[in-house]
Amino acid sequence: MSAFEAFLSTPGMLGVFAQDAVVQAMLDFEAALAEAQAAEGVIATAAVVPIRRACALDQVDAAAIVAASGRAGSLAIPLVKQLTEAVRRLDAEAATQVHWGATSQDVIDTAMVLCTRRALGMVEHELAALEQALWRLAERHAGAPVLARTLMQPASVTSFGFKLVQWMAPLARARQRLRAAGEAALQLQLGGAVGTLAVMGDRGPAVARRMAVTLGLPAPAGSWHTQRDDWVRLGAEVGVLCGSLGKIARDWSLMAQGEVGELAEPSGAGRGGSSAMPHKRNPVAAMVALASALRAPQRVAALLQAMPQEQERGLGNWQAELAEWAGLWAAAHGAVAALAEAAAGLEVDPARMRRNILALHGLVSAEAASMRLAEVVGKPKAQALLEQLSRRCVAEGVLLAGLVKQAVADDAALAAAVTPQEIDTLFDPDHAAAHARARAAEAFERLRAQT
Amino acid sequence: MSAFEAFLSTPGMLGVFAQDAVVQAMLDFEAALAEAQAAEGVIATAAVVPIRRACALDQVDAAAIVAASGRAGSLAIPLVKQLTEAVRRLDAEAATQVHWGATSQDVIDTAMVLCTRRALGMVEHELAALEQALWRLAERHAGAPVLARTLMQPASVTSFGFKLVQWMAPLARARQRLRAAGEAALQLQLGGAVGTLAVMGDRGPAVARRMAVTLGLPAPAGSWHTQRDDWVRLGAEVGVLCGSLGKIARDWSLMAQGEVGELAEPSGAGRGGSSAMPHKRNPVAAMVALASALRAPQRVAALLQAMPQEQERGLGNWQAELAEWAGLWAAAHGAVAALAEAAAGLEVDPARMRRNILALHGLVSAEAASMRLAEVVGKPKAQALLEQLSRRCVAEGVLLAGLVKQAVADDAALAAAVTPQEIDTLFDPDHAAAHARARAAEAFERLRAQT
Amino acid sequence: MSAFEAFLSTPGMLGVFAQDAVVQAMLDFEAALAEAQAAEGVIATAAVVPIRRACALDQVDAAAIVAASGRAGSLAIPLVKQLTEAVRRLDAEAATQVHWGATSQDVIDTAMVLCTRRALGMVEHELAALEQALWRLAERHAGAPVLARTLMQPASVTSFGFKLVQWMAPLARARQRLRAAGEAALQLQLGGAVGTLAVMGDRGPAVARRMAVTLGLPAPAGSWHTQRDDWVRLGAEVGVLCGSLGKIARDWSLMAQGEVGELAEPSGAGRGGSSAMPHKRNPVAAMVALASALRAPQRVAALLQAMPQEQERGLGNWQAELAEWAGLWAAAHGAVAALAEAAAGLEVDPARMRRNILALHGLVSAEAASMRLAEVVGKPKAQALLEQLSRRCVAEGVLLAGLVKQAVADDAALAAAVTPQEIDTLFDPDHAAAHARARAAEAFERLRAQT
Amino acid sequence: MSAFEAFLSTPGMLGVFAQDAVVQAMLDFEAALAEAQAAEGVIATAAVVPIRRACALDQVDAAAIVAASGRAGSLAIPLVKQLTEAVRRLDAEAATQVHWGATSQDVIDTAMVLCTRRALGMVEHELAALEQALWRLAERHAGAPVLARTLMQPASVTSFGFKLVQWMAPLARARQRLRAAGEAALQLQLGGAVGTLAVMGDRGPAVARRMAVTLGLPAPAGSWHTQRDDWVRLGAEVGVLCGSLGKIARDWSLMAQGEVGELAEPSGAGRGGSSAMPHKRNPVAAMVALASALRAPQRVAALLQAMPQEQERGLGNWQAELAEWAGLWAAAHGAVAALAEAAAGLEVDPARMRRNILALHGLVSAEAASMRLAEVVGKPKAQALLEQLSRRCVAEGVLLAGLVKQAVADDAALAAAVTPQEIDTLFDPDHAAAHARARAAEAFERLRAQT
Repeated sequence: MSAFEAFLSTPGMLGVFAQDAVVQAMLDFEAALAEAQAAEGVIATAAVVPIRRACALDQVDAAAIVAASGRAGSLAIPLVKQLTEAVRRLDAEAATQVHWGATSQDVIDTAMVLCTRRALGMVEHELAALEQALWRLAERHAGAPVLARTLMQPASVTSFGFKLVQWMAPLARARQRLRAAGEAALQLQLGGAVGTLAVMGDRGPAVARRMAVTLGLPAPAGSWHTQRDDWVRLGAEVGVLCGSLGKIARDWSLMAQGEVGELAEPSGAGRGGSSAMPHKRNPVAAMVALASALRAPQRVAALLQAMPQEQERGLGNWQAELAEWAGLWAAAHGAVAALAEAAAGLEVDPARMRRNILALHGLVSAEAASMRLAEVVGKPKAQALLEQLSRRCVAEGVLLAGLVKQAVADDAALAAAVTPQEIDTLFDPDHAAAHARARAAEAFERLRAQT
Repeated sequence: MSAFEAFLSTPGMLGVFAQDAVVQAMLDFEAALAEAQAAEGVIATAAVVPIRRACALDQVDAAAIVAASGRAGSLAIPLVKQLTEAVRRLDAEAATQVHWGATSQDVIDTAMVLCTRRALGMVEHELAALEQALWRLAERHAGAPVLARTLMQPASVTSFGFKLVQWMAPLARARQRLRAAGEAALQLQLGGAVGTLAVMGDRGPAVARRMAVTLGLPAPAGSWHTQRDDWVRLGAEVGVLCGSLGKIARDWSLMAQGEVGELAEPSGAGRGGSSAMPHKRNPVAAMVALASALRAPQRVAALLQAMPQEQERGLGNWQAELAEWAGLWAAAHGAVAALAEAAAGLEVDPARMRRNILALHGLVSAEAASMRLAEVVGKPKAQALLEQLSRRCVAEGVLLAGLVKQAVADDAALAAAVTPQEIDTLFDPDHAAAHARARAAEAFERLRAQT
Repeated sequence: MSAFEAFLSTPGMLGVFAQDAVVQAMLDFEAALAEAQAAEGVIATAAVVPIRRACALDQVDAAAIVAASGRAGSLAIPLVKQLTEAVRRLDAEAATQVHWGATSQDVIDTAMVLCTRRALGMVEHELAALEQALWRLAERHAGAPVLARTLMQPASVTSFGFKLVQWMAPLARARQRLRAAGEAALQLQLGGAVGTLAVMGDRGPAVARRMAVTLGLPAPAGSWHTQRDDWVRLGAEVGVLCGSLGKIARDWSLMAQGEVGELAEPSGAGRGGSSAMPHKRNPVAAMVALASALRAPQRVAALLQAMPQEQERGLGNWQAELAEWAGLWAAAHGAVAALAEAAAGLEVDPARMRRNILALHGLVSAEAASMRLAEVVGKPKAQALLEQLSRRCVAEGVLLAGLVKQAVADDAALAAAVTPQEIDTLFDPDHAAAHARARAAEAFERLRAQT
Repeated sequence: MSAFEAFLSTPGMLGVFAQDAVVQAMLDFEAALAEAQAAEGVIATAAVVPIRRACALDQVDAAAIVAASGRAGSLAIPLVKQLTEAVRRLDAEAATQVHWGATSQDVIDTAMVLCTRRALGMVEHELAALEQALWRLAERHAGAPVLARTLMQPASVTSFGFKLVQWMAPLARARQRLRAAGEAALQLQLGGAVGTLAVMGDRGPAVARRMAVTLGLPAPAGSWHTQRDDWVRLGAEVGVLCGSLGKIARDWSLMAQGEVGELAEPSGAGRGGSSAMPHKRNPVAAMVALASALRAPQRVAALLQAMPQEQERGLGNWQAELAEWAGLWAAAHGAVAALAEAAAGLEVDPARMRRNILALHGLVSAEAASMRLAEVVGKPKAQALLEQLSRRCVAEGVLLAGLVKQAVADDAALAAAVTPQEIDTLFDPDHAAAHARARAAEAFERLRAQT
């Protein structure tokens, strides 16, 4: 494997789709097939024990299977050959019953389903950890006023809790949709040569139902050799998750900049240092998540490109899809695990958030002030006034609140309606964050109800 | 618009996201906003009539709005400016109430939601037409034996109905998932400057609820300025649909080849001719669908790439997403409309299907024959025999059935168990298609239940 | 066209691939074909004048051609039909000579080549303007010390000129490579029905050479109906340009943040305001370039995906490629034009750059200090010392220079070798920028030599 | 590594970017750095021998380096740490000189350059083998008439040599462009912390020049930490190669279909069989190349998406680019090696090609016949006649040549000008292929000149 794949994923997830795991899952398919067929009378009952015994990783040479797969055009052909040999060593008669009536794609697709079930569990596990860590940040810092920034410019004041909601709500949706997409996609594949289960005669559907039970998968409505829509939907859902994680990472990377300093990823042994610059603490979890958010969309695109598979089995596109699949999960797990770990130790600096607001001299409250004065003098006049005062505030480096107070004092109508205290309140970060806090509180309740 | 976009889409869908339609949808937002705000006491009731009256396409210059949008950084800024002027011409006081407390993204995203609702309806309409046309083909030709082909090589015999099921089942799923994804994604956007509805005070949520009712959209749980997951999920669903349509088109294009001739797109005035070759009838519907299946994945990838939007409003990525969106729907509608029209007149040639099976001299029944003989002599011996006979069949150009009969006659055990009539049956296309027909019949029942 | 395509491109470039322009270019092909064929004796000389006269936009109905193209499967078929009618109105005999021996793809590909030649010229024009504007910034601000930032964290001091070089060098390369790629790709397409020019007999190559001269294109070595490599290389080059522009835009957007403030896009009528926040000045040119840098890669991917075109003319993939092409150029021209305009008025704030350096209390000079002390006490000891002092600098908010001076004074060996003045120099931004200035000066010379 | 990556690539290429190879290349960088710095007096000469001795794979734990890289945010940090330890075991003083003044990206990018140089050589090697194999096919079969097919429909007659040219010309261009792109991209990376080589003082550029000589790389004009254009151009060139290989594979897969049978991939032990169907011979080389042509475009898109790297070192995008890079080369080498092997044994069936032409009853010569008759009766009349006769030919299943002869005999003007022998000639596949042969012969000469 490329050294840089490991860097952006996790050993756990790389193991899920590694040679040994895929070969073992293929063997699990073959064992379940033999059992189901014996139970339905398709093959001899005596064949089950030797086949099941041979369906173990130490009975075959996984590396040799993979090495032979390129010329064979499939992992299944060398695997079936080796497995047949392994069974023959135990029971020559049973060897004739191996892989009966199944096709390469049956064993490969089902193996991928089994591996993917594990992958999904692992992603869900880290997702829950990330959500938990963000809840803990909410407990401590939800109320803190912080700059909202639009188009990468300071815009107005919001609350840190409102930002948390923006990160967490998509994660809660991802959790639900991943589960639903997994249920639809993680189905047994069993169709025989061309999807019709013809060789098993009338007993094909019953064999499939038994296998599904053994492997803990839903009973399939039919084969899906070249109907990849539910499978690709699950992939797209993983892509959406990477996008939502990337959004969190983008925000962290911006808030962690030296000039902003509103949060920092945890430091620690071997974490985020620099080979040339001793003072640096790099946002490495954000880095991993951003890399995943860049790579995952291309893998989803590849899955979609692969959908127009030819007739009863695709040439090139099915195989490309299989190879892209693992990379997608590797990216997702790398991202969610990195963010979960960092979120648990994320350093949030509410004081710096407040200083960043104040450093803008009140400009971010210009809209609120304009709205308040508009109640007295109308929107056009209020807006024109605030625009003029904002320009002075920038040019002279003075506080906008002071300029507004002066302008109000200079205008009889305004002076009669708006007090200096009210103006101070308008420019107070805590006041400015009040609506954000209210919205966030409602959202937290909704999120809690979904957990 | 590029001349080649029109070529691969439909005038109807290109109109849905065209300048005038988007501007009108933005005006619909502004009118609904004013009404809701007046009802909640945020703006003066007297402003509603003039604002609603000005919210018509003939009151603004849509082309000028689009032309100014690049420098402005948003379509909304020049629109609000023009609308304010239009209202002022009717009522100067009301002009001060326009777009109160909303932000550019509110009006733009909601306008896109409104346009997308129309787009979704149009896609669903053609999808239903395509499904209907395929049902009609099933009524006439479901039972016809036809070659199944895997890795683009003849594999075995299936039924045309089984192929139809492979095309139709993903369409039925697409219909359901598009509806669900649309319900989740097609929500009002209303958050004000940074998503918190701060300017509208406590009345913000009530304004949003009223607007949602007016516009016929679900009441939103909150703003989703930079939480694009549900929106992108809808886009991914459209991408999956394009993939499923591309699979149909790929199959048609292969079955329509001159050397295969199992089906043909309808001919007709101006349809699929060649400027240089008078005898050609090109599969132009398949062409459009294949082009869409190639383009749509890249648009989905762009939507996913755009997800890590910065803080409270993205810089570049939100805008890129908006621009990619229309292209995705254009591709999807072009594809489904082309296939629906062609499916209604698709020429299916069951006789040619049968000839193509017979031209293989029985090779595609080798597996079935091998399985039958295996019951007598065991799988290894049966397979070896059939492999040898298949080689002779190819080398000598003789019928495999004859070779098998001879081999059975030459082997006492086989001769005792397998009759020549049984062998003929094994090589009969109708017999070979029997299991496919059974599987297809079950599937048609499931599909009918979902309609 | 979608309202958001216009927003991210330019009217000029959208016009280049619009319906009228493509149809006119197709007519230019037909006129040149007739002239060349008459000169070579393939068609009657008398046919040239009426054909040339009919090859004008007002002689055909471009909208009707595009409208008919979907069902026809090609723009060329309805165009040839209309053109033949138009010629017939002038001269019935000449009408029989129209489009003689050419195929749809000949006229469409050549028309796209002619349009693309204009597009390339327009991109080169704006690219030159952008480079000019950056040269002017270099004249004024090349020497200014500014923070270098790695992984979005302050890293060290560089010069603004060094940043300019990083922006400009890729543009100079883009200019050269675009030209070379254009020369290879912008070739006449003329192959007849299947690429062999069979219908024109032995005169085919001579006709092609004459047409190439008329249209100002290189003489082609042969047809390239399904050999799209040089064409796609040009597209990839446009994609690389968008990436290099995106890098500039990314840097601008980061340096223009409120908390950084090192540069700002120009303000001006209708430029980058906010509908809700009067004080904002949004980096709208960076926005357009970032959107292009996100969209263009997916269009390049589509071009590459389209390359495996079937046999002598692709089904779906050629058509998809044509449709993606225009979008790529639209994105590129939108980006380069926006950056060129903004660069001409870019506000650079060297004082703020210096303040941002100083705000880090000397941390960014830690590496330089460590290296200097290492000469006396060795690297490990020097690094350990600086790490410890850096931590104190951060924790106590004091200047690192002071801490270093104290440490040097406290250590006899260091005190003997390093003076306080030397330490002050190490921490002086101008000194820290010296090497960056030297590297940038060399680079500017290389760039000037390439202009 | 995912089991399916191996399946679609080659062990050789997977090794090029594997953990050990990348770590060794990083160590080669560190050794060359020390040597160059000692020669320039930046570090002590005595440090060179121990550093070089420690720069061997058995001196470090490559797996541990990769395992630590995720948290560290870079492969270089744990490598430098381990290397420093390894040197310290040999010479404590020398350990202080390791990696002096370089940055993580210097060692990583240069290591990738060194690995990529090997990768490029391997791709060029297989490309030459593929071209050779195609030349051998040309020697034997260039003249064979074969159907040209457009939009997947039979169009006209061409020669197999003309098809070979369409496959080979893009390969010859790919060879030249890959070399040129490699020369531009495969440069030393040496910039120090922020690209300015500041720590090495004035000797930085000289150190870089010496290192370039040692490593056999061109002397770099400067660092390219965030200027990835030339690097991405090389990647795009690999993507274009995959597209051109995919076009060959697409054609093979279509020509190898059972109903077409014009060519077949070689059979052989373990090659392209089917687990369920003994008679099948699958086009597995085409399968691998088609999979690569589907996957590579998405990797190129990822490289382009990664280009807008932040300031002096990207966060997430640089790392994503590194990880995508290896996959691109794996895809390309898998494809070219598979096609080269298969081309060497490709079975071409000129007799079947001729039969496929004849099976169309002369329809593909309709254009040629129309053109000949047009010389006598004008194009419109000739076309109308041929269209009518073509319809009869299809409807009645008779030879078009006979119908044309009859029509000529029935028309005095035609009968006087066109002899039956001439008509037979027009419908003779060898005659129909003549122009294709002439064009191909010219092209083969041009190709030979480029070898």
